[in-house]
Amino acid sequence: MPIKLEGIFPPVPTPFDSDGEILPNKLQANLALWNRTGLHGYVVLGSNGEAVMLTESEKIALWQAARAAIPRDKLFLVGAGLESTRASIALAKRAAESGADAAMFVTPSYYKSTMKPAALIQHYRAIADASPLPTIVYNMPAATALDIDADTVIQLAEHPNIIGIKDSSGNVAKYAHIVRAVRPDFSVLAGSGGYAYPALCVGAQGAVAALANVAPRECVALYDAFRAGRHNDARALQLRLVQLNAAVTTRWSVPGLKAALEELNQGFYGGPPRRPLLPLAEADRAALRQVMRDAGII
Amino acid sequence: MPIKLEGIFPPVPTPFDSDGEILPNKLQANLALWNRTGLHGYVVLGSNGEAVMLTESEKIALWQAARAAIPRDKLFLVGAGLESTRASIALAKRAAESGADAAMFVTPSYYKSTMKPAALIQHYRAIADASPLPTIVYNMPAATALDIDADTVIQLAEHPNIIGIKDSSGNVAKYAHIVRAVRPDFSVLAGSGGYAYPALCVGAQGAVAALANVAPRECVALYDAFRAGRHNDARALQLRLVQLNAAVTTRWSVPGLKAALEELNQGFYGGPPRRPLLPLAEADRAALRQVMRDAGII
Amino acid sequence: MPIKLEGIFPPVPTPFDSDGEILPNKLQANLALWNRTGLHGYVVLGSNGEAVMLTESEKIALWQAARAAIPRDKLFLVGAGLESTRASIALAKRAAESGADAAMFVTPSYYKSTMKPAALIQHYRAIADASPLPTIVYNMPAATALDIDADTVIQLAEHPNIIGIKDSSGNVAKYAHIVRAVRPDFSVLAGSGGYAYPALCVGAQGAVAALANVAPRECVALYDAFRAGRHNDARALQLRLVQLNAAVTTRWSVPGLKAALEELNQGFYGGPPRRPLLPLAEADRAALRQVMRDAGII
Amino acid sequence: MPIKLEGIFPPVPTPFDSDGEILPNKLQANLALWNRTGLHGYVVLGSNGEAVMLTESEKIALWQAARAAIPRDKLFLVGAGLESTRASIALAKRAAESGADAAMFVTPSYYKSTMKPAALIQHYRAIADASPLPTIVYNMPAATALDIDADTVIQLAEHPNIIGIKDSSGNVAKYAHIVRAVRPDFSVLAGSGGYAYPALCVGAQGAVAALANVAPRECVALYDAFRAGRHNDARALQLRLVQLNAAVTTRWSVPGLKAALEELNQGFYGGPPRRPLLPLAEADRAALRQVMRDAGII
Repeated sequence: MPIKLEGIFPPVPTPFDSDGEILPNKLQANLALWNRTGLHGYVVLGSNGEAVMLTESEKIALWQAARAAIPRDKLFLVGAGLESTRASIALAKRAAESGADAAMFVTPSYYKSTMKPAALIQHYRAIADASPLPTIVYNMPAATALDIDADTVIQLAEHPNIIGIKDSSGNVAKYAHIVRAVRPDFSVLAGSGGYAYPALCVGAQGAVAALANVAPRECVALYDAFRAGRHNDARALQLRLVQLNAAVTTRWSVPGLKAALEELNQGFYGGPPRRPLLPLAEADRAALRQVMRDAGII
Repeated sequence: MPIKLEGIFPPVPTPFDSDGEILPNKLQANLALWNRTGLHGYVVLGSNGEAVMLTESEKIALWQAARAAIPRDKLFLVGAGLESTRASIALAKRAAESGADAAMFVTPSYYKSTMKPAALIQHYRAIADASPLPTIVYNMPAATALDIDADTVIQLAEHPNIIGIKDSSGNVAKYAHIVRAVRPDFSVLAGSGGYAYPALCVGAQGAVAALANVAPRECVALYDAFRAGRHNDARALQLRLVQLNAAVTTRWSVPGLKAALEELNQGFYGGPPRRPLLPLAEADRAALRQVMRDAGII
Repeated sequence: MPIKLEGIFPPVPTPFDSDGEILPNKLQANLALWNRTGLHGYVVLGSNGEAVMLTESEKIALWQAARAAIPRDKLFLVGAGLESTRASIALAKRAAESGADAAMFVTPSYYKSTMKPAALIQHYRAIADASPLPTIVYNMPAATALDIDADTVIQLAEHPNIIGIKDSSGNVAKYAHIVRAVRPDFSVLAGSGGYAYPALCVGAQGAVAALANVAPRECVALYDAFRAGRHNDARALQLRLVQLNAAVTTRWSVPGLKAALEELNQGFYGGPPRRPLLPLAEADRAALRQVMRDAGII
Repeated sequence: MPIKLEGIFPPVPTPFDSDGEILPNKLQANLALWNRTGLHGYVVLGSNGEAVMLTESEKIALWQAARAAIPRDKLFLVGAGLESTRASIALAKRAAESGADAAMFVTPSYYKSTMKPAALIQHYRAIADASPLPTIVYNMPAATALDIDADTVIQLAEHPNIIGIKDSSGNVAKYAHIVRAVRPDFSVLAGSGGYAYPALCVGAQGAVAALANVAPRECVALYDAFRAGRHNDARALQLRLVQLNAAVTTRWSVPGLKAALEELNQGFYGGPPRRPLLPLAEADRAALRQVMRDAGII
């Protein structure tokens, strides 16, 4: 049965101990808590999962742990994009063996001057041809300094095994351009909770949002309000959450996200990021708490 | 009576003859056509008005002509921002004498490394203190390579004579951040028609959109649909217009806008831009017509 | 007699009083001091002259004052670039009437997405055809967010009235590319004192350097050392001056330059910049003094 | 015995067969050819070695092959930088076991908003503390969209096991700033052959240059001319090579470099890059040959 990308998906952080070792059981414990909140699925090893920090065997261990903790009625998405096409395909196969439902591939970007539409198109088509999993394009300009354009996405959407894009550009005009041009079952997912509601308004079908880790019920409520046509409710939630979203993304990045999980005091494991990411400084943590209070989540 | 920035405002282009001389009567003739379309007002000498190409006396001549052609129930906004604070104030006084209702000031940007929040705040406050007209901040990163942040805007919104911002960043999360924090009568206007609807969804009160020059009724219909809660209609209009919007902004800039006015065949004067802007090449003009047909406006 | 762009040219700052009024006599007094230092000429109303802050009549007044204070054996260069081609030509004519020897024109940049090679080429050719003065291209990416490429410059160098480029990109590979391809009497001038020596090494014929306002003798000594083949001396001077150069350019911009002139205690007038530029804060001024001491100029 | 980074080092490309498999023996054959040219050493698995495309076992196989082919009087440098500190250290240990002389670490950049000086400093210090090999900082803004600043480099140079920086910013003013401030045995290496000579002029001690793969003797001649004080010769070589350098770097990237090796017809193996990099198109290859002829290397 084909999967449909719809709803709110947190890109879950990867728990490390104080020596930097992965803690798959903490990931499972976190998932058990999130499972109670109405989220529609998870992205395991996206940017917020510190995928670029992990070895292949660590990735597989985390995916296997996640698979065991994610109910079958929620989507289990993974980040499997690497710089080379062949390595991305190989990792997608590992993800499939680990039980994932679909795989996201961030745009290659190291040789960014060469990553023109033709290069990106052959990259994603080769992946989609070879991957046992449905393929999702992942656009993340803040990390890659590369922004895939609408025309390239529209061409990619012609491939039956490319089912959507997570786009973290925040360029809602681009989302509208894509939505108008692609087949109905190709999903655009907003890449952040800071513009989830306006993205839905122009036809996005959901969001992959770091915010959904720390405010899962609020994000799902925003989505449900939009789907029910309760636009005033959706807008109110969006305005209430926009600064909290910034806190766990652009302002303090993964260290902010992990600290926010801890500050919730709901049993989530945050823990330190892997170096060179530095744990949130204490002064920033105090400011984070204030943002969380302002958003009404603590 | 305080004015309220609400609705759809085209930044009208400046008509030139083939020698590059301004044609104020053609501006009046264009305005007479637009006056029949439900637009809520006009911006005369914004970026699309080629303000940076004009002498002060040309600006005044164009404003005076516009004043005579704009009914009192529509807002007459002007672009009066220059690199220096004192020159901006002086020009705002000329605009007031010409009968404008409010003036927009693009962020100074030549010394961009020094245009930190403190510099921008003193600039806009000095203008707002001295200008006889209500002051509107104008953020135009594509031209200035400078993007004013939400916190700076929120501070500026505390000044009683700063009534809004036209923000062409397209960053709807920033709009939401600002809307949540400022007084209710401070308006955020989307700076482009490509994201007018999602901007309205997060609390923007309208748009200054080049698109509204060539699709005024459609832009007003989008706004009216939003205000009436007919979100599906607003979305459909937004999707239909998004590529046309790109054609007259990011893709072909002012030359595309002027060519599109001509291609409408409704009596609008387009004419050439001032050099170094080049008239649209014939091949591009054919592509433009196709975009206009796709959008259903020709 | 054709002029040849060779040597060290400070882009002189524009003196303002505490009300922001221009002080042409202070400019003359500064020039009288610089005249004793071996500088090869001056740029009056470049970026460091706050040209974008001035009215046309102020510009003419300053040029006329400068003309009277600049000996005939030093080059009197002016900045006359504006966004429109016709206005740039008109201003070049005013500069010629004021007695300038040649005029620099910064790349138009407001409509930067349209400033492709074809647009820049017709802009500069039209200026060079119409201007009574020799034409110099001025590339200033830090201000314009636009960087003219080598191939465009090489094409422009075919015009007999385009005699050189001041390039503030610091891209010495580009300088080498241009130098190899153009006629021998087309000059490349480094746009900053931070890389004057390596630029000379690849064939630049001099520099327009803010640094030369505050360290004129040292800049001339660097140039002379290079010309005499005393590379170790040139290198030593370059290393000694590189942080001072940053202080009066990238680090503190025009306010830093003006403060440094004052800190020399040699009679130069610095004074405040025009708003929105803010005078150097006292803490920064103390840091500036330390940089000046480290460079051995106070 | 401490090593000293001096001279010309090509970052050698990685040979792949038409299926994308590594060909260590072709690397050895290439090295045998380069060994006859006077080069001072090699970087194996830098950006031009497509390091980001390779698995760890492929990297080790290539390093072991290179070790066997590189004479002991030439430096064997490797690229061992990864996003995480711990993985970079682990890979440095593999490089040491493979017989490398020193290891370069590109700046982590995925979480670029967080890669502030404090994060970079702890990253490089941790590597330098733990790595069995001398540590070289590698700055590559065209790939990483991150540019390490002079002050950070100067702080890093205080660590006894950090012996230099390869800086591909081309910012020769920065090189001068660093050179003046650091201990004499800390080397700045230019990161490209397009500005090798001007970099040497301000105190760089050599270059890691893709150009040196295709024009090794010319690059060494440039270096020797500089060292002997024959500046005119060095300049002439620099001007002659600058466009060829662009061809194998900014213009056509690794595919251009590999094609240029083939076009030399000297027995070098070029071969295809790994996808998503695309082989040079035939029209580009013809243009490349023209550039090579203009530079006098074919």
